Amino acid sequence: MNSDTFCRKIGYVFNRPELLRQALTHRSHSLPHNERLEFLGDSVLNCAVSGLLFSRFPHLTEGNLSRVRANLVNQQALAEVAQGLELGKLVRFGGGELKSGGERRPSILADALEAVLGAIYLDGGFPMAEKVVTTLFAPLLQELDTGTLGKDPKTLLQEYLQSRRLALPQYAVIATTGEAHQQHFKVECVIPKPDIRTIGEGTSRRSAEQEAARQAYERLHPLD
Amino acid sequence: MNSDTFCRKIGYVFNRPELLRQALTHRSHSLPHNERLEFLGDSVLNCAVSGLLFSRFPHLTEGNLSRVRANLVNQQALAEVAQGLELGKLVRFGGGELKSGGERRPSILADALEAVLGAIYLDGGFPMAEKVVTTLFAPLLQELDTGTLGKDPKTLLQEYLQSRRLALPQYAVIATTGEAHQQHFKVECVIPKPDIRTIGEGTSRRSAEQEAARQAYERLHPLD
Repeated sequence: MNSDTFCRKIGYVFNRPELLRQALTHRSHSLPHNERLEFLGDSVLNCAVSGLLFSRFPHLTEGNLSRVRANLVNQQALAEVAQGLELGKLVRFGGGELKSGGERRPSILADALEAVLGAIYLDGGFPMAEKVVTTLFAPLLQELDTGTLGKDPKTLLQEYLQSRRLALPQYAVIATTGEAHQQHFKVECVIPKPDIRTIGEGTSRRSAEQEAARQAYERLHPLD
Repeated sequence: MNSDTFCRKIGYVFNRPELLRQALTHRSHSLPHNERLEFLGDSVLNCAVSGLLFSRFPHLTEGNLSRVRANLVNQQALAEVAQGLELGKLVRFGGGELKSGGERRPSILADALEAVLGAIYLDGGFPMAEKVVTTLFAPLLQELDTGTLGKDPKTLLQEYLQSRRLALPQYAVIATTGEAHQQHFKVECVIPKPDIRTIGEGTSRRSAEQEAARQAYERLHPLD
């Protein structure tokens, strides 16, 4: 594999190929090596993943968003993405590191992947780096979606109660304020057993229901 | 102060003012509050500051870049920036938090500032958020510049040796390879006392000298 093949895999072609070369240079090889780019890429990755999670999971609290992000952005996950790209074959090592199998070490692979993202950020700006992150992490995000995270609170609450053969929640609007074009709703969610009552607010009946359901679900089944 | 004044201060006008309102809503007040935006803004801020430091301090190692970033992006520094903007006056609190002086609490101010940056990121994209970060942190970056961080390695090394009345370093090109338009230089830096010899490489004589000086300076005066 050469760097052209790699660029095709990640869907980004460098205007300044020397940035990619630097990102793929381990400190054991020569200067300039990839450690400063890794510093940059680490925060680029973190920011891009935060943005993805924020928009993809509108019902998750900040605590759960942090937890999901930590599961996506860690050395092991990054090393696996890097392995999928065969990144280890492209990293340039000095003699000692080469003999000791540096190209298979997870920390080195994860660092090199971050450095590549830092290089894309410098070369093409944040939106391009974000696009590559979206491509690379799509399969991992897909796995998350198949779990509970992608579902809205009303669905989660209903499934939870059904699986335990408990009565389903009742939602009732208990207050509406504001004028027609900017109304504000208060909805109560009542679960008979276990006895739980929550109140959600929102600018639509639906959003107030979802908020009430979220509170009820979190009380039954704390994610935090 | 109203939010228009605030927008003028930070140099950004929202397309969707409801995002600013959410960023300025403490969880004690009502939903939607600012905690999810704070999650997002924290990583936007971190990324923007990393990019600023990366380009502003081309000679700093990644370890020192991390250290400088931690000095800029922490609760106290953020709270001071927020105080300078009188952000506390705009945050909406619930009754209890209001009475207990929430608008002066550093953690609440820092969180609200991060949430504002998250809101700008959603409203106008990363480059706009980065611009606001650059504006808000310019004075803090200026302070850093007046220290040793802004100086290049040759200057730092020379000042260090002079302050100890030691002989100045000698630089000598020991190898030049490559063709005229892409030459590669190896420069040796020799300090007689304490006996230090380092070799720097680069695509220009100047950059190779700076690299050799950086290594010598780090050996004399480890920042890491």
